[in-house]
Amino acid sequence: MTNGAVIGDHRHMPSQFEPPSGTRDFLAADVEQREHAFTVIRDVFSRYGFEPLQTPAFERVDVLLGRYGEDADKLVFKILRRGEHEATGEADLALRYDMTVPLARVMAAYGSQLRMPYKRYALGPVWRADRPGKDRYREFVQCDLDTLGSPSLLADAEVLSAQHDALAELGLPGLTIQLNSRRVLAGLLEAFGVRPDLGASVLISLDKLDKLPAAEVVAELTGRGLGQDQAGELVTALTAPDSVDRVRIALAKTDEGTAGLDEVDTVLSLLSDHVPAGRIVFTPRMVRGLSYYTGPIWELVAPGVAGSIGSGGRYDHLIEHLGGPDVPGTGGSIGVERILALLPRAADQAPRLDVAVTVMRPDLELQSFGFAAAARTAGLRASVYLGSSGKLRSQLKWASDIGARWVVIYGEQEHEAGVATVRDMRSGVQAEVPAADVSDFLARAASEDS
Amino acid sequence: MTNGAVIGDHRHMPSQFEPPSGTRDFLAADVEQREHAFTVIRDVFSRYGFEPLQTPAFERVDVLLGRYGEDADKLVFKILRRGEHEATGEADLALRYDMTVPLARVMAAYGSQLRMPYKRYALGPVWRADRPGKDRYREFVQCDLDTLGSPSLLADAEVLSAQHDALAELGLPGLTIQLNSRRVLAGLLEAFGVRPDLGASVLISLDKLDKLPAAEVVAELTGRGLGQDQAGELVTALTAPDSVDRVRIALAKTDEGTAGLDEVDTVLSLLSDHVPAGRIVFTPRMVRGLSYYTGPIWELVAPGVAGSIGSGGRYDHLIEHLGGPDVPGTGGSIGVERILALLPRAADQAPRLDVAVTVMRPDLELQSFGFAAAARTAGLRASVYLGSSGKLRSQLKWASDIGARWVVIYGEQEHEAGVATVRDMRSGVQAEVPAADVSDFLARAASEDS
Repeated sequence: MTNGAVIGDHRHMPSQFEPPSGTRDFLAADVEQREHAFTVIRDVFSRYGFEPLQTPAFERVDVLLGRYGEDADKLVFKILRRGEHEATGEADLALRYDMTVPLARVMAAYGSQLRMPYKRYALGPVWRADRPGKDRYREFVQCDLDTLGSPSLLADAEVLSAQHDALAELGLPGLTIQLNSRRVLAGLLEAFGVRPDLGASVLISLDKLDKLPAAEVVAELTGRGLGQDQAGELVTALTAPDSVDRVRIALAKTDEGTAGLDEVDTVLSLLSDHVPAGRIVFTPRMVRGLSYYTGPIWELVAPGVAGSIGSGGRYDHLIEHLGGPDVPGTGGSIGVERILALLPRAADQAPRLDVAVTVMRPDLELQSFGFAAAARTAGLRASVYLGSSGKLRSQLKWASDIGARWVVIYGEQEHEAGVATVRDMRSGVQAEVPAADVSDFLARAASEDS
Repeated sequence: MTNGAVIGDHRHMPSQFEPPSGTRDFLAADVEQREHAFTVIRDVFSRYGFEPLQTPAFERVDVLLGRYGEDADKLVFKILRRGEHEATGEADLALRYDMTVPLARVMAAYGSQLRMPYKRYALGPVWRADRPGKDRYREFVQCDLDTLGSPSLLADAEVLSAQHDALAELGLPGLTIQLNSRRVLAGLLEAFGVRPDLGASVLISLDKLDKLPAAEVVAELTGRGLGQDQAGELVTALTAPDSVDRVRIALAKTDEGTAGLDEVDTVLSLLSDHVPAGRIVFTPRMVRGLSYYTGPIWELVAPGVAGSIGSGGRYDHLIEHLGGPDVPGTGGSIGVERILALLPRAADQAPRLDVAVTVMRPDLELQSFGFAAAARTAGLRASVYLGSSGKLRSQLKWASDIGARWVVIYGEQEHEAGVATVRDMRSGVQAEVPAADVSDFLARAASEDS
């Protein structure tokens, strides 16, 4: 859907001219849609005091590999050594896999020079050698914002609020935030008497409650070592209509659960004035796959979109694990590629010009070129005709094809009379304008248009 | 110079945290300076009716290699095959080396769906495994604009005019355009009786007239097979105070020279109304290194900058040579990295916030968070204090360090009175503002500021 007709239509494209598997060419309409969305996101993040950070497309392999496990390492694009070392077949660099490893490196490198807490956003491509598929690319844009150096829940609420605002300003309908905490989950396991060594695997099963019938999850849990009753009660607490009440009662029994509930309630309270009621929901069964979270976790979802369009959470030891200093951290990510597929897209043949200027005779080129310059001075997009036809009909067709709002016609008649004919391509009305007044005339017409 | 103090200062940076050799991290002030320049350039190019094109960071190796010769191929970063093929040490992909090879591929792939002539710009990073040095990077931004499918000199003039406007709007002082034509050079060699088979090597020597004394260039030319008188006369014609007149007389003797002069005079004439007098100069000795040019060629130079800050020319067979269809083309490039080094740079500690909001007590967090949200509603950059100190002095220091224009103070007194204290950090003046009016108050103060 993102690709639209022009890019997606490979029927007539000889394969040797396609972009590499899993990557895309973006022609004008795509670039403009994407850049518009990126600008909205950047503006919102800036308003929250997050600053931009840009790191290189590649990192040294030792910085990148071994951070997220073997499966992730297989998805890394590695760059061959060069010159005399090329024949070794070894890699010394690798394309960045995410924005977090570079963030950890930057914290280690410039930490003492950065204002703490360091609030930064990163918006740019990352590369993963995943099997390409529908809406799964090998080059795609990631959009992260993170606050490092603050243990305060205000930092979590700020990240989540900024994500919410960005998605709301992009115009995503039906946005909902699911909020939970890793400490809620830990408290829940404790309250239901789950042995600590089973905790991680139990969470993996509970994470499936959205997809599998409750009975199947119960079966999985007993397979993992939980008692039949224990598994049944745990799943019921998370799926019953009064699930949140049941969970709150259970959590109140343990210190960790109480602390987790406090986290959730604090974030809910901080966002209550800003996020419309009902749009943010305590969701105890929401687990988030990644193991590094330590506090609040959240996902942003929208109707009709499988999975989340944004997510985040607190990860107080991740930066150290990734090779940076030991600082508390919280952050989130917006699924921009997924969102771009949902947003309305400009037509492939969107207007590229406000003003098209004819070139009727070689000896009138100079004046035509000057009219285009005059239109630009008026702030308009303008170009002369660059084709080879001297016929007005062909040049008007070009102007029409390119979506020009006005055409400046300058032929022999106009030349002799010292005027230009300005044609309104919407109404078909033509006006004779003194040559020196064309810029003012177009500026006036454009301001009446808007 | 681009890097500034923060990034350039590697004294305290343990080397394992540096970005890879020849690449850079861009912190906030750098990103903002760069993005500002990119926005100016994009806006100018759009005004000329050029459309954006974005292609992937990498291409298949067969698309990229062998296009510019062996020396260029050595500078290409190659990507190792993956999975079971990784052990072969072979590469199947390579990081893009320039924007022109991808353009040729796109023309081949989508040519029939593109509006012709296709006027596009491309602005993004390219990668070359050059030896890193001062102002020479392995990852750097290239900025190209090209018109494919038009043989008209209007297209050349349009590209050059757009480059000129972009550089002028960036505020580069003392900009000059040197204009020549490959056909002028060909005509010149013919007029001075240079054997056709010596032409290319003679041009290589003439290209050195800017750097070497005339006598040395004459010596080089005789070494290449020119007669002593012939070499002397040729060099004199290109270096004498009345060089342009001498060259014009010589060129008038040959068809090729006459055609070349026509090209130069047409472009000069087209730009005469737009580019201030004296800023564009016919420069017969300007050769441009690359051999693929076929018509007008130009360089944009500025005082104090070695080499050019922009260049371009007509290359009617290059796209075919690079694997695309046989279409006429003309285009230019702006040396953005070079220009960025010349432009004023925001301070590293540029303000990141308009409004800083204190958090004096945990039970007042909610109100503080709300004041920051209110300030954002007024369009301002705002954040609450995320640190751990409950002291006003520490929080004011944070606000001052981060460059906040106003601080909203909300402590016990304010809480009881239902107000917030808004402190103007420039004047030190404080005002008590009813809590509900903080957003309006800040909006008004900001509008008085601007």
